Amino acid sequence: MLDPAWDAAGLVTAVVTARETGELLMVAHMNREALAVTQASGEAHFWSRSRQRLWRKGETSGNVLRVIEMRIDCDQDAVQMIVEPAGPACHTGARSCFYRRIEGERLVPVG
Amino acid sequence: MLDPAWDAAGLVTAVVTARETGELLMVAHMNREALAVTQASGEAHFWSRSRQRLWRKGETSGNVLRVIEMRIDCDQDAVQMIVEPAGPACHTGARSCFYRRIEGERLVPVG
Repeated sequence: MLDPAWDAAGLVTAVVTARETGELLMVAHMNREALAVTQASGEAHFWSRSRQRLWRKGETSGNVLRVIEMRIDCDQDAVQMIVEPAGPACHTGARSCFYRRIEGERLVPVG
Repeated sequence: MLDPAWDAAGLVTAVVTARETGELLMVAHMNREALAVTQASGEAHFWSRSRQRLWRKGETSGNVLRVIEMRIDCDQDAVQMIVEPAGPACHTGARSCFYRRIEGERLVPVG
């Protein structure tokens, strides 16, 4: 039974991966409303901690994430969304937010 | 330059994916020490929030995660570790902690 382990702020971690490639695209957070609206609409919604409001991914950029499948982890404090992205997932324009490799103290663009 | 955006508890989110398949294996948290020890040792270390201590993944099970590459996201509050797992990543014995699909209020084993 779905029973998310909401943290003290009422959130779970949301990990977004691309259906076609499996690539990790972004990490954000969901509250109860974001999860419900995502399930109802089929488009990824998050809780924006900085803006303290529900956030429909792509609401300004148009780069919505169509949710193909949702999974939850063993202790139900993290959700995976397998998506078809309409465009770059990152606000920088990168396909994935994880576009830099850590090398010691340096960050190097992923090839 | 590497400059993680530690949260109020001194943590960043850590997302672990398998090098060979790209599969999402687990999500946990890292503090400054876990990140440093992971970089120095090449094996994934986390901060256990429940036990409030540094946690070398696999320290009891033997299922260590050899870190091939680390990436960080745009706002540096989430780290990706691309790993070669020595065994199941999940404490349940599942290969991935994300072994159940959400269908409405039900959880269904991933095929």
